[in-house]
Amino acid sequence: MGTVVALGAQVGGAKLADGLYRLRGKDLAVIVNTGDDCEHLGLALSPDIDTMLYTLAGLADPARGWEPAGETFSFFDTFKRLGGPDWLRLGDRGLAAAVLRADGLGAERRLTEITLDFCRQLGIAARVLPMSDDPVRTLVRTEEGEMSFNEYFFQLQCVPAVESFHYAGADRAELSDEVIDALLSPDLEAVVICPSNPYHAIRPILEVQGMRELLRKRDAPVVAVSPIVGSRALKGSAAKMMREMGREVSARGVAIEYYRQIDGFVIDTEDEALAEGIRASGIEVLVTPTVMRTPEDCAALARGVLDFAQVVRERKAAQEA
Amino acid sequence: MGTVVALGAQVGGAKLADGLYRLRGKDLAVIVNTGDDCEHLGLALSPDIDTMLYTLAGLADPARGWEPAGETFSFFDTFKRLGGPDWLRLGDRGLAAAVLRADGLGAERRLTEITLDFCRQLGIAARVLPMSDDPVRTLVRTEEGEMSFNEYFFQLQCVPAVESFHYAGADRAELSDEVIDALLSPDLEAVVICPSNPYHAIRPILEVQGMRELLRKRDAPVVAVSPIVGSRALKGSAAKMMREMGREVSARGVAIEYYRQIDGFVIDTEDEALAEGIRASGIEVLVTPTVMRTPEDCAALARGVLDFAQVVRERKAAQEA
Repeated sequence: MGTVVALGAQVGGAKLADGLYRLRGKDLAVIVNTGDDCEHLGLALSPDIDTMLYTLAGLADPARGWEPAGETFSFFDTFKRLGGPDWLRLGDRGLAAAVLRADGLGAERRLTEITLDFCRQLGIAARVLPMSDDPVRTLVRTEEGEMSFNEYFFQLQCVPAVESFHYAGADRAELSDEVIDALLSPDLEAVVICPSNPYHAIRPILEVQGMRELLRKRDAPVVAVSPIVGSRALKGSAAKMMREMGREVSARGVAIEYYRQIDGFVIDTEDEALAEGIRASGIEVLVTPTVMRTPEDCAALARGVLDFAQVVRERKAAQEA
Repeated sequence: MGTVVALGAQVGGAKLADGLYRLRGKDLAVIVNTGDDCEHLGLALSPDIDTMLYTLAGLADPARGWEPAGETFSFFDTFKRLGGPDWLRLGDRGLAAAVLRADGLGAERRLTEITLDFCRQLGIAARVLPMSDDPVRTLVRTEEGEMSFNEYFFQLQCVPAVESFHYAGADRAELSDEVIDALLSPDLEAVVICPSNPYHAIRPILEVQGMRELLRKRDAPVVAVSPIVGSRALKGSAAKMMREMGREVSARGVAIEYYRQIDGFVIDTEDEALAEGIRASGIEVLVTPTVMRTPEDCAALARGVLDFAQVVRERKAAQEA
């Protein structure tokens, strides 16, 4: 058994990463989107990193996976009374990472160091790695103009139709040593692209300069799991965005987004009819239940994905031989 | 009825200020100590201002008057798990002002503007005024060296014996326009020094350059209420500090601290025997119950203090005539 690198964000990504973590422990590194990070009132918010941390530490709320279990809102209640802006609902527990992160960044510590400290403190043996220590900000071009992802998501509630995405700073952002080490690990077994929104969770990671090249540097297979099942996003707004941008709203549409990047693609049993078409484009396909409702679902999907990656690797080796 | 200015801090000061507020509403200005303010993890803590705000807004916890009622500690719980320093226990509700204040100061707003915004938001008609917009930091010289008041109070729990106090920055700090306006009000009726620690609550205010002179500029009487009753501090560590610094631990000891500043002094009925001695030094004395347990106690003491100030004023006028 080698090491595994997962690329992911949001609740779906965290769930599959959690399944992989149950199988591989310290031999897992998760590269997480920071394109939705923002500074808000002096706090350093990294929503995707925190969702990943809470999930791997077993602290995430079972129903609202992006926030810690037992979240309370005393801060926000008093904050609003004092005239604080109310468009972003900040939870008491969630604030802790935002305050410590802002303090660390203010002291010139790297986001990666701060995040790995959190891992140690929370007893997470895997490495949760920001995609870069340099700022990258996902911008959404909509019918109402260009805006930050957070403005689109929290203030406009994803209402305006999306035209395209841009990743400000990605072309100047550098890969951290920790990300490079994880992807150049001599016993890298697989790279798993988790079922997260392709546009504001996975693509920001791929856009960091050098990331695409590095993903292909070793012969480890790159395998993605579709976040779209039966023409709908399992969570969030991916289907809406694909429709508005004129893409095919299906698992095949997602495979097309990742086409140059992946060797294998995992779709849900509900979408079995799409398998042939995707295979025809030269991508290996696994058809398996992908909906993760329980920790057992997460571990089962993770096991299926890693077994599939092994098959993809063997076929690749056989083809090249 | 004219306007009233109170100088105060901490729970005792906030209680008497609240009594004065019930009597005078918008015609009260409270000048509050900021010598214990500190920046902690990027948050701007102003403990005495916040105690005053919570009290006047009716939000203070009845038992722990320095924190808002219904305070919770979810933030601090998660904060410690993430490795945050645990010497200062931060409450969820209390954090709100600290975050908004840091954000305002970061945007170059004055502490006074920020505080008056909080008053408006909380429906406080009185003006709560920081003693200065410039930083003043109370330093405690102890047998273990010099340290910030917060280090002495929170980290060393007031254990080291105190030798003296210093107020770093006070000689360069300027009075705000709002403080000057309050003290130069043409119908200023009385200045009330609330029953707060003389060394780290009242003296920092008096040490701001120009404050002592301004307090004497109008003919309004300056009247102080003793925080010491029967040789003990009603709350906090004033008696311990007086003992360690070789002062007389009594209401008379406090009167001596304020000697040059006050026209009248209010002591508790328990200390009636001290009245003659204080009067002999030329200070008018009111003997009355000073222990404030209920809102009615606060209002009754406030009424007694203002009536006493009126008597002091008339006697002064008669003497000068």
